[in-house]
Amino acid sequence: MPEVLRPTPDSGWTLAHDGYSVTTESAVESRFAFGNGFLGMRAARSVSRGPTWASWLGYIRWASWPRCYVAGLFDMPNTEPAVPALVPVADWSRVRIVLDGATLAAREGAMLHGTRTLDLRRGVLLADWAHRTPAGVTFRGRELRLLSLADRAVGLQILRIALDRDEVEVKLEASFGLAGLGMEPMRLERDLAAWRTEGTAKAVAMAGAARLAHGGAASEPERPFPLRWVWRWRSVAGQAAVFARLVAVARADRPDEDPAPPAAAALARSTALGWRAVLAAHEAAWGERWTMSDVLIEGDDALQRALRFAVYHLTSAANPEDERVSIGARGLTGDAYFGHVFWDTEIYLLPFYTAIWPEAARALLMYRFHTLPGAREKAVRLGYRGALYPWESADTGAETTPDSVLGPNGTPVEILTGKMEHHISADVAYAVWHYWRATGDDDFLLQAGAEILLETARFWVSRAVPEADGRRHIRHVIGPDEYHEDVDDNAFTNVMARWTIARGLEVVALLQARWPERAAALRAALALGDDELAQWRDATARIVDGLDPETGLYEQFAGFHGLDLLDVADYADHALPIDVIIGRERTQGSQVVKQADVVALIALLPQEFPGASAETNFRHYEPRCAHGSSLSASMHALVAARLGQTETALRYMHETASLDLDPDPNSAGGVRIAGLGGLWQAVVRGFGGLTLSGERLEIDPRLPPQWRLLSFRTRWRDRMVAFRITQDGVDARLLAGERMEIGIAGTSVALEVGMAQRVSH
Amino acid sequence: MPEVLRPTPDSGWTLAHDGYSVTTESAVESRFAFGNGFLGMRAARSVSRGPTWASWLGYIRWASWPRCYVAGLFDMPNTEPAVPALVPVADWSRVRIVLDGATLAAREGAMLHGTRTLDLRRGVLLADWAHRTPAGVTFRGRELRLLSLADRAVGLQILRIALDRDEVEVKLEASFGLAGLGMEPMRLERDLAAWRTEGTAKAVAMAGAARLAHGGAASEPERPFPLRWVWRWRSVAGQAAVFARLVAVARADRPDEDPAPPAAAALARSTALGWRAVLAAHEAAWGERWTMSDVLIEGDDALQRALRFAVYHLTSAANPEDERVSIGARGLTGDAYFGHVFWDTEIYLLPFYTAIWPEAARALLMYRFHTLPGAREKAVRLGYRGALYPWESADTGAETTPDSVLGPNGTPVEILTGKMEHHISADVAYAVWHYWRATGDDDFLLQAGAEILLETARFWVSRAVPEADGRRHIRHVIGPDEYHEDVDDNAFTNVMARWTIARGLEVVALLQARWPERAAALRAALALGDDELAQWRDATARIVDGLDPETGLYEQFAGFHGLDLLDVADYADHALPIDVIIGRERTQGSQVVKQADVVALIALLPQEFPGASAETNFRHYEPRCAHGSSLSASMHALVAARLGQTETALRYMHETASLDLDPDPNSAGGVRIAGLGGLWQAVVRGFGGLTLSGERLEIDPRLPPQWRLLSFRTRWRDRMVAFRITQDGVDARLLAGERMEIGIAGTSVALEVGMAQRVSH
Repeated sequence: MPEVLRPTPDSGWTLAHDGYSVTTESAVESRFAFGNGFLGMRAARSVSRGPTWASWLGYIRWASWPRCYVAGLFDMPNTEPAVPALVPVADWSRVRIVLDGATLAAREGAMLHGTRTLDLRRGVLLADWAHRTPAGVTFRGRELRLLSLADRAVGLQILRIALDRDEVEVKLEASFGLAGLGMEPMRLERDLAAWRTEGTAKAVAMAGAARLAHGGAASEPERPFPLRWVWRWRSVAGQAAVFARLVAVARADRPDEDPAPPAAAALARSTALGWRAVLAAHEAAWGERWTMSDVLIEGDDALQRALRFAVYHLTSAANPEDERVSIGARGLTGDAYFGHVFWDTEIYLLPFYTAIWPEAARALLMYRFHTLPGAREKAVRLGYRGALYPWESADTGAETTPDSVLGPNGTPVEILTGKMEHHISADVAYAVWHYWRATGDDDFLLQAGAEILLETARFWVSRAVPEADGRRHIRHVIGPDEYHEDVDDNAFTNVMARWTIARGLEVVALLQARWPERAAALRAALALGDDELAQWRDATARIVDGLDPETGLYEQFAGFHGLDLLDVADYADHALPIDVIIGRERTQGSQVVKQADVVALIALLPQEFPGASAETNFRHYEPRCAHGSSLSASMHALVAARLGQTETALRYMHETASLDLDPDPNSAGGVRIAGLGGLWQAVVRGFGGLTLSGERLEIDPRLPPQWRLLSFRTRWRDRMVAFRITQDGVDARLLAGERMEIGIAGTSVALEVGMAQRVSH
Repeated sequence: MPEVLRPTPDSGWTLAHDGYSVTTESAVESRFAFGNGFLGMRAARSVSRGPTWASWLGYIRWASWPRCYVAGLFDMPNTEPAVPALVPVADWSRVRIVLDGATLAAREGAMLHGTRTLDLRRGVLLADWAHRTPAGVTFRGRELRLLSLADRAVGLQILRIALDRDEVEVKLEASFGLAGLGMEPMRLERDLAAWRTEGTAKAVAMAGAARLAHGGAASEPERPFPLRWVWRWRSVAGQAAVFARLVAVARADRPDEDPAPPAAAALARSTALGWRAVLAAHEAAWGERWTMSDVLIEGDDALQRALRFAVYHLTSAANPEDERVSIGARGLTGDAYFGHVFWDTEIYLLPFYTAIWPEAARALLMYRFHTLPGAREKAVRLGYRGALYPWESADTGAETTPDSVLGPNGTPVEILTGKMEHHISADVAYAVWHYWRATGDDDFLLQAGAEILLETARFWVSRAVPEADGRRHIRHVIGPDEYHEDVDDNAFTNVMARWTIARGLEVVALLQARWPERAAALRAALALGDDELAQWRDATARIVDGLDPETGLYEQFAGFHGLDLLDVADYADHALPIDVIIGRERTQGSQVVKQADVVALIALLPQEFPGASAETNFRHYEPRCAHGSSLSASMHALVAARLGQTETALRYMHETASLDLDPDPNSAGGVRIAGLGGLWQAVVRGFGGLTLSGERLEIDPRLPPQWRLLSFRTRWRDRMVAFRITQDGVDARLLAGERMEIGIAGTSVALEVGMAQRVSH
C-alpha cells in the first residue's frame, strides 16, 4: 500500500515543493496542478486547512482556495464585465482530522516536514508530511490525488495517516468543500450533488464514494450530510489508517440534459473496479502517453526537466473525447483569463498535439468548427464576410473579450483586442491546414477543416480592402505586439491573411480535384462562386505585406520604422513590464515590441523569408522586443534555433522554461501553457528541425554542441516515427505504419517498420 | 404594504445609489451596510445576481460577494499570516427569480431603473428596480432588508414583485447563499443550519422562515433542501407577490455551547410576532436612538447629512448586550483589517458612545476588561509589567497584528505596530477614565475600570525606564504617526503614559477614600504595594515629554526637529500616500506626519498645553501632516474648532465627511468608522464645546458664523440634557434626571427637569 504513495524514484520525473508560504502558494498550486482535459485541479492542500488568504494594507484577498475545474463549465456571471468565465466546482478532496478534540492545524505544533510532489510520470500529486501537535502527538500523512486519464470523469484520493501514540481519539471527516460557489444546487443526495450554473444552461453533477480501513479492517462511516463521511476510532501507535475516495463528475450543456446519471454511472464503474484498478488504469494511460511524448535531452538537465513539465501539462490539458471545449490560456490550472481560449491554442499548442497526439488536436480543431457560427456572427457584426474568430472564446464561439477591465488602481482600462486583434482568424486556418498536412486526416478536412479554411479566407478577402493605391490594406488591427493598438498593415496579420486566402484557393482546387461532390456541395452551401474566387486571387496578389524587397526587412506595421527608438535593455531588469514603466502612450510611440510579431512570422511561414531575410528580420526585431508576454521567448528560441544562433536559442529556451518552474507570481492564475507548448516547439522544431507539413516528413537537426542526445517521437499520416539525434547523426525508426520516405537533413531515407535508419553528419 | 418599502420622504434621512458599476460596487456595499452591533450586512443585491467580480490583467478578483457578519465570530485560518479574522456567515437574503424558464439577470434585457436607498431613520436598506426582460416582460421589484435593533438576533427581508403581463410562469427561489464559506457545517436541517469555525471553538447557527403571498393568499413552498424555499405560480398582470423572510442567528463561543437552540428560539419569537411587528419594533428602536443621538445642523447641509450618516453607522456598530466584542476598524461593514479592534474604538468612538449611549460604551470597555489577561500576557512577553493592550485585538485579547503582510507586488512587508505601537495602553485607560467621569458609573469603576487603570499605569511605569540623565525615557515606540517607526520619547505616548500613571495614583487614592475594602482587595490581588506607588509618583515626575518650556512646542519625538523639511502640500494632489511616493525610508527621514500625533494630544489632554501652547503646536504640526490616515482630518478639525480656527475646522470636517460618502475605493473594505466618530467629536466637542469629564458638565460653543443652529443631546451622570446652540446663545434643557449645575461658556447654570435655561452671548 504505501508504495503507491511514493513518487517515482527518478528525480527527473518529479517536482517537489517543501513547506508552505503564502507568498508562493498560489504559484505552487498552479504548477502542481493535475488534470485530464475534462477535469483540472489546483494543488491546494486537502488536509487541515481553512481557506487560505493573503492580505495587504489590511484587506483580505482570498488568494488561494482549492479549485477543481470542469472543462467547458462556463457561467455568465450577472455582472460587469459580462463575459463567461470558467466556474470552479466543489473541492471533492477535503479532509479534516481531529485528534482528541483538537483539529489538526498546520500552524499549531510543529510541522516536522511537509512536501508536495508532482509525479509527472504517473500523473499524480503526492503529499508527505509529519506534524507534531501541541499535545506532542506525531501525525504522519501521505496522500495521492489524481484525475484519471483512463476514465476522465473519475478522480481518486488516497490518504494514509498514522500516529505515534495509542489511544488518541481520531476523527476523520471527509467532505466536499465550498460546494457550489456561484452555482445553484439542484440535487443534494447522500452520494451525489448536482448544480446548475447561474446564468447559462449548464449543469454539473458530482458523486462520491469513500472508504476507510484501519488495522486492516474497513470501518463504517457516519453520514451526517450528503457527501460527508465521518469516522472515529482510537489510535494504535504506528498503525496506519487508509482513506480512499473516488469522485465522478459529469457536465451537461443543455437544460434537458441531466448530469446526474452519467456521474452516478462513472462512480459505479470506478467503485466496481476499486481504487487500485482505477490507479493502475490511470498509470497505464500516462505510461502510454509518455511512451509517445517523452523528449529526451542529454546534456541539459534543466531543459530536460522543463520539457517533461511541459509535456505533463500539455497532456493534462487536452481531451480527445470532447469536441466542445478547447484549452484556455491557463489550461485548467487557474482562474486567469476566465478560462478563455486565445490564439495560444492554435499557434503554440497545436503543433505539439498534431505531432504527438493527433486525436487531441482533432478535437481542439473541431471546437473551432463547432464555434464557426459565432465567428460568422462576429464577422457580420463588424461588417465583414466569412468567419472572424473571437479573440477570446469560451463555449459558444461568441466574442468574450471584456470591453474593459478594472486596472490595479480601480479604474477601468479599455480592452481593444476583442475588437481589433483579428489575426486569430488566420491562426486557426494555419492550425487546420498544418493538422491536415501532418495527419492526412481527409475526413476532418471534408467534414470541418475545408469549411474553416474557406470561411476564414473569405473573411480576409473582405477585410483586405482595395484602396486608391491599387493595393489591399488591412487597417485598424492589433498584431501579436499588443503594445501597438489600432495599427495599419501589420505584417504578421497581412502575410498570414494572404497565406490563408491562398490556402482557401488551394483547398477549393484540391476538393474539386479529389472530392468534386463535396466541393460542389460546400461551394453551394457557402454560395462561393467563381467571381468570388477571382476576388480571392486578386487579394493574394495585392495585399500589402510591408516587405522591403531591397533589404528583405518587413516593417512590423505601417509607420513602425519611424517610431522612437528605445533601448529595451535599459528596462530589462525591472519587475514591471515596460509599458507600465514608461506608460501606454510612450510605448505606443516607440519601437518596442511586446512579443514576437515579425519574429513569429518567421517561425510560422519561413517560406516568406527568402535568402537572408529571416536573419535580417530577426537581427532587427530581436533587440526591439521587451518580451512582455509569456508567449515571446519560445518563439524567439525557435527562430534562433533554426537560424543556427544556438546560444541565443538556448538562452530563450531557458527563459521560457523558467516561466512556470521558477517562483513567479504570474503563475498564480495558472500555468502559461502556451509557453510550455512553445518550449516543446523550440526544442523539437527548432533544434530538432522537425517539419510535418511538406509532402514528406522532414527533419533537419541543429543540435547544440553541449547536447549529447535529443530524442523524440512523432506521428505523421498514420505512422509513428522515433528519432535519436546525436552529434554524430540521426537515427530514425518507423515504429508503426506503412513504409515511408522521410528527409533527414535533405537526404531522402526510406523507413520500414522494424528497420532503423541512420544518417551520419 | 408597499408603504413600508418606501423610504422616509425627507431626503435628509436617506442615501440613494442608482445603478450598478463594478468600479464602485464594493464601496457602495460598505456605505449602505446595515447592522445592529451583533449582525452586520453589506449592501450586496439579493436578487438576480451571481457572485460579482472585478478583474484585472486577466485575473479574477472576487471583489464583491455578499457578506453577513456576526460580531465576535473570529476564526483562525490555518494559514500565514496566522491571525484571527472575522469570518462571514451565509448570505441569508439570496433570491432567484425565473420567468418562463429564464433566470432574471441584470445584464439581460434592460434595467429601466434600479436604486438602492439607505433609510437612516428607519435603519433599513431599500431597493426599487424595474427590469424589462429580453422577452419584453417588465418586472418591478421593491425590497426591504434590516437587522433588528429591537432583537439583535433577527433579520428581515421583504420583497414585493410584480409583472406587467398575465400567464408568465414565475419561479421564486429563496435560499441561503455561500453558506459556510470557510466553516464546517455541523447541522443542516429544514429550517436551520449550524457551522463551526475551522480553527477556533466558535459556532454559529442560522434559522430561517419564509412566506409568500400573491393575490392576497399565502402559498405553500416546495422545500427541496434545507433553508431553500421555492414557489411557482402564473402571473397576473399588475398583481404583486410579497415574499417575507425572517432569519435568526446565534453565536456560540465555547465547544460545549450549542448555538442552534437560541437561533431557533429567536426565529420562533419573530415568527410569532410576524414580520410587521418585527419591522415596527425595529423602527421604534431606531426612533428611540435617533431621539437621543440626532445632531441638527442648520446652515451646512453637507455636514448635516454626514453627521446623520456617522450616527447611523455608529448606532449600527455597537451592541450594549455583548461585553465580549468590540468594534473593528470597519465595524461590521467589510473585510478590511480582519475585523480587528484598534485604538480607534477608545479614542475615536468612545466619546460618542459615552455621551450618547453609555450602555454601549460600558460594553465596549468591558471587552477591554475581559481581555486584560491577553494584555498582561503581552506585557510579560515583552519584558514589562501590568497590561499592554494588543495593537490589534480580536476576541481573546491576544496581539493579533500580523508580523507581515503581502505588499501589492507580492512581497512581504514587515509590520512593526504590533511590537511597538504601545500608546493603545494609555488610550484604553483614557477611555475608561472619561467614561467613568461622564457617567459616574461607580459599579463599572469598581468592577473593571480601576483594574484597567492600575494595570495600564503599572505597565507605563515599567515601560518608562530611568536612565543616566535622571529622566525616564520610553524608547523604541511608534506613535500615532506611523510613518516614523522605532522612535524614542514620542510626545503623544509619553504624555499619555504620564497621564495614565497619574490616573492610576488618583484611582488608588479615590478607592482608599471611598471604597477602602475594594482598594485593599484590589491592591492585594495586584500585589500593589506602597513601594511601587512611590515608583509611580517618581515616574510621573520624571518622564521626558519633549516640551520646550520656552516655546511651548512639543517635539513629536526625540530628533524630529532635526529631520528634513518637506513641503507636504507638494504631494497633496497625488492619489497615492506620500510614503508610497517618496518611499518608506525618505518618509522616515522627513518631518512628514501621517496623522494627528501632537495634534491628537492637544485634543485629548488640552490641560497639557497651557497658554498659547496649543496654538503654537497646531501651527507647527498642521502643515507637516500628510493625512495618510482616515483618522487624521477629524482630529485636526476638533483642535482647529477649539482654537477658533473655524474655517480650518470646517475644511477638515468636510474632508472627514467625504471619506465614506464620496466614491472612494478605500471604502471597499468597509466604512472607516473612526472617521465617523471623529466627525461627531469635531462637531459636538469642537464647535459644541461639550466636556463631560469635569466636576460639572461644561459646554462652550464656537458656532461657525454661517451656522444657524447646532443642537444635540448628551447623557451625563444619569441625566439627559438637550442643547440648542444658535448665534444668539445656548438653550439647555434637562430632559431626565436630578437637578444639576452645568457650565455654559463659563457661566454656571442650574437645570431642573422641564425648565429650559438660556444663556445669551
